[in-house]
Amino acid sequence: MSAIRNFKNCGSVLVTGASRGLGLQIVDSLASGGFSPGKIIATTRQPSSAQKLQELAEKHPNIHIITLDAVNQESIEKSVEEVDRLVAEEGLNCLINNAGIKVESDFHTVTAEKMIENFHTNAVAPLMITKAYLPLLKRAASRGGAGGAGKMGIQRAAVINISSGLGSVELAWGEEAKNIRWYPYRTSKSALNMVSRCMAVDLEPDGILCMAVHPGWVRTDMGGSQAPLSPEESITSMLSVIGRLTEKEHGSFLNLTGEVLPW
Amino acid sequence: MSAIRNFKNCGSVLVTGASRGLGLQIVDSLASGGFSPGKIIATTRQPSSAQKLQELAEKHPNIHIITLDAVNQESIEKSVEEVDRLVAEEGLNCLINNAGIKVESDFHTVTAEKMIENFHTNAVAPLMITKAYLPLLKRAASRGGAGGAGKMGIQRAAVINISSGLGSVELAWGEEAKNIRWYPYRTSKSALNMVSRCMAVDLEPDGILCMAVHPGWVRTDMGGSQAPLSPEESITSMLSVIGRLTEKEHGSFLNLTGEVLPW
Repeated sequence: MSAIRNFKNCGSVLVTGASRGLGLQIVDSLASGGFSPGKIIATTRQPSSAQKLQELAEKHPNIHIITLDAVNQESIEKSVEEVDRLVAEEGLNCLINNAGIKVESDFHTVTAEKMIENFHTNAVAPLMITKAYLPLLKRAASRGGAGGAGKMGIQRAAVINISSGLGSVELAWGEEAKNIRWYPYRTSKSALNMVSRCMAVDLEPDGILCMAVHPGWVRTDMGGSQAPLSPEESITSMLSVIGRLTEKEHGSFLNLTGEVLPW
Repeated sequence: MSAIRNFKNCGSVLVTGASRGLGLQIVDSLASGGFSPGKIIATTRQPSSAQKLQELAEKHPNIHIITLDAVNQESIEKSVEEVDRLVAEEGLNCLINNAGIKVESDFHTVTAEKMIENFHTNAVAPLMITKAYLPLLKRAASRGGAGGAGKMGIQRAAVINISSGLGSVELAWGEEAKNIRWYPYRTSKSALNMVSRCMAVDLEPDGILCMAVHPGWVRTDMGGSQAPLSPEESITSMLSVIGRLTEKEHGSFLNLTGEVLPW
């Protein structure tokens, strides 16, 4: 729990795909934990149909719901304008690229369209969203952060990409690989890992931390009922890892307990 | 040179993107080497404008030029019909997915469209082409191959994906990464590595070898004039590696001298 406390020193966190699954749980855990960041910005494609998120926002006045369709450039840019007004001169401290889909086609059912659909949402959208939010992230980074001037971390500015162990090319082998043969999902996450690594190189001069994290296999709509972890278990552990990130973890790929995963 | 000799025991090799650059050099080296496979099938989008390839084919009657647009499913399937007639009951022994493009946009100039364009050609097309050629590869594999029944290798059936060291997420760090920040190209090649690894798992039960190879930095239209390697140097070395592949290299990522690269 101690590292989640670090979010208290984080002025603003934006979470994409916050209407359900892990995104909703991140918002819930951040809002309810007693160590809540100043502003929790929860984005979703259709706020009007995000019932559970609306209920959370009624209970916690620091939750702000913003419309964002991750594969629509106009929608991304419109969301930046809204968030800009919300965070004002403080900028955005932590962007969590969580929105994602899972297209499960195997070798025999996969099509070019399915590959591109999953790639667009899971790898391209986090890149385009980070690009669009760069001025807000730079603004936050330039203020130095609560953790001490020049230190990297969520108290200053960070981009967290929710990846997956299934995006590890190294681990896509052996028995597990034989059972989970989703070409679109796996390639989209390995591409996201490359995007994450390249962005880490590009964001470093501005003092913005960037890394990829694997939340584990979780009982959500996406993970299914067989998964070993509850959303709360996954997110409590993952937020603890995110809360204690420093320049040492810049450009890394970690699992929910903070262990390094192979690319 | 000795391992290139192994291509003599290879009934047919298909090379995509054979009108220029590395693809043309592969065809040239295979045809001219004195250890030429039975049939060299050279595919290109527009045979009529592939002047140098046409000239090679006039000199070497075992070169067969076939139309194939790698991002057009109809064109892929039409090419399979033609190649099917050409290789008949012997099937296709070696598919070299070489066709590729390089979109160089950096963090500031990259767009979703550029990401998707490069991903489609470099990662999705090799998958869709391999899927479409699977019956021909299986037919060749079921014949056992010249290397001894059940052994993996180009003499039996193999899928070789021309990848790039720039697709290594591990290596996308440090000074080199700062200089080469092409998001579309890098992500397309890391995605191709994942496709290659997943296909290796799926093709193994049929005895079809699958791996990815980095041809080095080569003086082609794509590589530019600053590159240290001539096309002939790169391809001589790479064909030697491909010629001696066995089940040990199944699912691997090697450079042009046969060293293992990190994913």
